[in-house]
Amino acid sequence: MTARPVITLLTDFGHLDPFVGVMKGVIAGICPEANVVDLTHDVPAQDVFAGAFYLERAFRYFPDGTVHVAVVDPGVGTRRAPLAMNAHGHTFVGPDNGLLSWVARRVRAVRLNNRAFFRAEISHTFHGRDVFASVAAHLARGVPLESLGPTQKRIVSLARPKPRKTRYGFSAEVLAVDRFGNLITNLEPAHWNALGRPRLTVGSFSTERLSHSYGAARPREIVAVFGGYGLLEIAARDASAAALLGLERGTRVGLDERLSRRRP
Amino acid sequence: MTARPVITLLTDFGHLDPFVGVMKGVIAGICPEANVVDLTHDVPAQDVFAGAFYLERAFRYFPDGTVHVAVVDPGVGTRRAPLAMNAHGHTFVGPDNGLLSWVARRVRAVRLNNRAFFRAEISHTFHGRDVFASVAAHLARGVPLESLGPTQKRIVSLARPKPRKTRYGFSAEVLAVDRFGNLITNLEPAHWNALGRPRLTVGSFSTERLSHSYGAARPREIVAVFGGYGLLEIAARDASAAALLGLERGTRVGLDERLSRRRP
Amino acid sequence: MTARPVITLLTDFGHLDPFVGVMKGVIAGICPEANVVDLTHDVPAQDVFAGAFYLERAFRYFPDGTVHVAVVDPGVGTRRAPLAMNAHGHTFVGPDNGLLSWVARRVRAVRLNNRAFFRAEISHTFHGRDVFASVAAHLARGVPLESLGPTQKRIVSLARPKPRKTRYGFSAEVLAVDRFGNLITNLEPAHWNALGRPRLTVGSFSTERLSHSYGAARPREIVAVFGGYGLLEIAARDASAAALLGLERGTRVGLDERLSRRRP
Repeated sequence: MTARPVITLLTDFGHLDPFVGVMKGVIAGICPEANVVDLTHDVPAQDVFAGAFYLERAFRYFPDGTVHVAVVDPGVGTRRAPLAMNAHGHTFVGPDNGLLSWVARRVRAVRLNNRAFFRAEISHTFHGRDVFASVAAHLARGVPLESLGPTQKRIVSLARPKPRKTRYGFSAEVLAVDRFGNLITNLEPAHWNALGRPRLTVGSFSTERLSHSYGAARPREIVAVFGGYGLLEIAARDASAAALLGLERGTRVGLDERLSRRRP
Repeated sequence: MTARPVITLLTDFGHLDPFVGVMKGVIAGICPEANVVDLTHDVPAQDVFAGAFYLERAFRYFPDGTVHVAVVDPGVGTRRAPLAMNAHGHTFVGPDNGLLSWVARRVRAVRLNNRAFFRAEISHTFHGRDVFASVAAHLARGVPLESLGPTQKRIVSLARPKPRKTRYGFSAEVLAVDRFGNLITNLEPAHWNALGRPRLTVGSFSTERLSHSYGAARPREIVAVFGGYGLLEIAARDASAAALLGLERGTRVGLDERLSRRRP
Repeated sequence: MTARPVITLLTDFGHLDPFVGVMKGVIAGICPEANVVDLTHDVPAQDVFAGAFYLERAFRYFPDGTVHVAVVDPGVGTRRAPLAMNAHGHTFVGPDNGLLSWVARRVRAVRLNNRAFFRAEISHTFHGRDVFASVAAHLARGVPLESLGPTQKRIVSLARPKPRKTRYGFSAEVLAVDRFGNLITNLEPAHWNALGRPRLTVGSFSTERLSHSYGAARPREIVAVFGGYGLLEIAARDASAAALLGLERGTRVGLDERLSRRRP
């Protein structure tokens, strides 16, 4: 724990209702010195997949010891377990529904059942406030993970789409569309570099060229670029690639060795 | 006052213009150690009713001594008074237009007229910045309420819809629709428990069953559940109950004793 | 530097992706005591003009010594320079594309090229995280501007529309439309006061009267008022003036001496 612990919040609560503010109120009552940072609260309602993606991409930029609270929790009030876990020097708190499972395969996890670290009254529908925010604030104050409940050997795992090796390259997919309409794929630099002369194909767009910036393109030109997520993006300068191409999350993306090399 | 005072902000300023940021700038200049927390800035423009609802539901989750600034202020620059008041161990700052009136009936209030605690220049249109943020920061630093202006005996009261007793139960209403499309009623657990075998009716939906979670329902099934606001909600799993039922704020909600008991 | 330095963030990143949160993560790792305040993240995508407007209007309400980070950066990864500069007792960090140029004409600027103050890995597409947030956090810790790179004599200037003197008054324009639909012009009190009997004309609306508040008008009545930006606004009570008049940014606004005085 640092002098000023950091707690991040990621939810699908949006910005209309004061639910995120209320979680911060609970934290302020337990760990007033915490620096609470919003990751995003615009995860599409109950979209655990999107939440897992944003969390896994964002947590690494925070200091060691940060406590990350993630609440995309369609099963709140049912038998799904509340969880806290350590991985990569960070701590994660949230429902055991796969949301935390992209962060790491090997984790040290406990099932939250020690009500001493919950709010006194626990609703059936708002564990973000009554369980997760409260537990996170106690963790930020230095309460050890083991105090929170019994060890849980496995956590629920959500399938994470990885590029699949094909005969001539990789079959990948669009994981997310960002606010600019860029199509975020699951291709990392290692995939591009594994091929001699790669060609990317997605919908009606195909390119053999990796751009180094959005700005080098002509207006509305579509380019492939490794973006802020560290993943290959299909982007359009000053426009939405998703709209121009009519594509969305889940679209297949091909990365293949160019023909001229395959048949020399 | 704690070592790190908490100030909350609730406005209808939205997130496009830097108005909320500017209020935080004013606070940072007066009370740099304050922990400033956003409740919501998406109160519909000039909707004092919605602001009163969100504030009353949210403030209780913050530590004692928190200063809550609420600015939904269609009358800014007119004769409506600027106000600060104590209630429930918290302090509230905002226009005297009913916005603060759901928090408590009995309050200790002062009319803000001591310009020593305002910004040097006071616009006609942005008292959130020039009056309320400034006063809140001084309160957070420990300035006593009495220094801010003369006692005000009554504050403007905004009618708060409470369930009305009927022959067989209660006539209630939808107070708000949340981000998930859940219909938030003004029915509290006490109302449900007052009846032997209650039946809830709203629009074309009727149920005799209280659910304990959203997740126990089938997809798109409509259920009644006590939600995060502590109020009875009509919710649909993975869908918007408001859209499915075609209902909105103000819709009447009936909670009645079931017929089979009324005529045994 | 104060005991708790203030850093503001203004971007076009929106609220869906965790990009703003990630910038705060980088700052928390370098300057944990910083008070990080959001100005706005809803600048329209790549709209440098709007970003320049919001920044210039907002920075003055923050304490001296505040570090303002602004990232609206369509040219990220191209040859446009990364910049830090001092003006008006504040420090500004961002791309040299005009975004910072409305703040002041005379600035002390350096081109950011000392990689010791960047993140270890620098992407081509997210200098907000890898360069600007990192540099801002070091500045907030007290690193002097001169350490960050060589002096840059000129910065890129973005034309700032100022009211033009005409025969009978001023030709002005709409700079922005706020969240309420108010049309924000570039007319300051000095322009209004320079005329004996001014008449304002914009689209189909004309008035000779300056209102002192929104609330004094009748519902949907259109009024002219000096608003929270310190600029003349055309506003409609409980309605959007932009929608009622069918006008948008860039619309010409006339402020002219009334005829009866011009031809006595």
